[in-house]
Amino acid sequence: MDASAWLAQRMALVDRYLDGRLPPATEPPAALHAAMRHLVFPPGKRLRPAFVLAGCEAAGAKPDLALPAAAAVELVHTYSLIHDDLPCMDNDALRRGKPTVHIAYGEATALLAGDALLALAFEVLADAEGSCGAAAVAWCTRTLAVAAGSRRLVGGQADDLAFAAGGPATEARVISVHRRKSAALIAASIACGARLGGADRDLLANLAAFGEEVGVAFQIADDVLDADRNEACSLVSVTGLAGARALAEEGLARALRRVEGLGEKGAALRALAVLAVRRAI
Amino acid sequence: MDASAWLAQRMALVDRYLDGRLPPATEPPAALHAAMRHLVFPPGKRLRPAFVLAGCEAAGAKPDLALPAAAAVELVHTYSLIHDDLPCMDNDALRRGKPTVHIAYGEATALLAGDALLALAFEVLADAEGSCGAAAVAWCTRTLAVAAGSRRLVGGQADDLAFAAGGPATEARVISVHRRKSAALIAASIACGARLGGADRDLLANLAAFGEEVGVAFQIADDVLDADRNEACSLVSVTGLAGARALAEEGLARALRRVEGLGEKGAALRALAVLAVRRAI
Repeated sequence: MDASAWLAQRMALVDRYLDGRLPPATEPPAALHAAMRHLVFPPGKRLRPAFVLAGCEAAGAKPDLALPAAAAVELVHTYSLIHDDLPCMDNDALRRGKPTVHIAYGEATALLAGDALLALAFEVLADAEGSCGAAAVAWCTRTLAVAAGSRRLVGGQADDLAFAAGGPATEARVISVHRRKSAALIAASIACGARLGGADRDLLANLAAFGEEVGVAFQIADDVLDADRNEACSLVSVTGLAGARALAEEGLARALRRVEGLGEKGAALRALAVLAVRRAI
Repeated sequence: MDASAWLAQRMALVDRYLDGRLPPATEPPAALHAAMRHLVFPPGKRLRPAFVLAGCEAAGAKPDLALPAAAAVELVHTYSLIHDDLPCMDNDALRRGKPTVHIAYGEATALLAGDALLALAFEVLADAEGSCGAAAVAWCTRTLAVAAGSRRLVGGQADDLAFAAGGPATEARVISVHRRKSAALIAASIACGARLGGADRDLLANLAAFGEEVGVAFQIADDVLDADRNEACSLVSVTGLAGARALAEEGLARALRRVEGLGEKGAALRALAVLAVRRAI
């Protein structure tokens, strides 16, 4: 398959959907609504929404069915970046080459914009009720809420912030943060897409495991790309560059073996996994 | 009815439920989980959960059915207080007579604890699927997400923060903030309780309108209690103390007339409304 064409076509769907669901930047309170859009457009990689739609296709359904979940995971991802960038967290002034939300709109508005994006994610997810049914919405709501919660994304973020103070970096400590801070939302993305596409329990479990392995490998690839930043929570500091690269490739290979049996329906998932881990995306 | 006994019995149910759904304070990351519990226990007034259970009873159902929604709205309320107290917002050091979460655990952990509580709210709400069905869960998820979003709670908070800079206080401006920042979550509480209790569309609409009127009156009563703080967004600064008291009473009376027809099933709702606005609660 032509992964770039697949991705471009899916991203256009996701962007249009997100644009329709975010309040206009001119609607009062205008600073809040503009701040909510600041990091959603222009788009980042849209990796998580792409995984949602690929998960839906892996279940044999048309990707449009999963657009509410695709938008929802992107909103969760965006909220987490806005809060991560705040002065009391990573205190970053730039993100994707432009000022972070708190630099552009002030700290209070950035905090509130993140809060509102997280709430909006659950509102948007409920849009799927009409086409996929309430049971699928309830399942995805629970899955996304768990992925975004203190045992996954937020807990990983907390441990990442306190990483250096927690003693020496070990492979297990680093992977535990990667699994919660990054892989959980990627796994939830694929699982929610597959659930909206009608996947059965076995397929869901297998795709969630695939997503978790891809997510960890993706974050290890990030460690390799960011090696010169000397971050405390980085596998490179434990295994060196070559070791980290090898672990990312091993994780990718394990993940790909899980979905071999899906044939053509799994083509998008496989292509995305390769793009994500090898960072051609 | 004996409103105090009713309330004490319901609050014990809610507290037990919340305690079971919040991760233990010793579970890693322990600072995060302790921070999530810091403002949930010991309990505040538990006004919103009480309204959830009263809404459920108004629909003729046992209050236990609505416990997931009762816990969810309290988690949303608690998250919003933690974020409101942060230095970039109201910068408050005390809440309910003890240090605010960021004073006790640091700013980053307080931010993350609020984020995790908001996600947990939606996870907990989904617990209701087993007893109330997925359609009710999807409905409540959407209702709670809208109430917590930029057009309601978060937008009201944004306008409240920027109130003084927005020109002279008028009754319309103050009420618009009160309606979004306070009344929306109270109205959603009652509506979600009623929906889990099986209320039909007409009853839901009427109870949501009741909740919005009670919520605005409650917040006006707050303005009266806080008159000596000279807050910018306060009806007292527009109407004076007596004027604000009269408006709160008028709102309460309008609300009570809406639920007259519910008879005994509406007794808890009526008693709570009176307690909330007259602040014997």
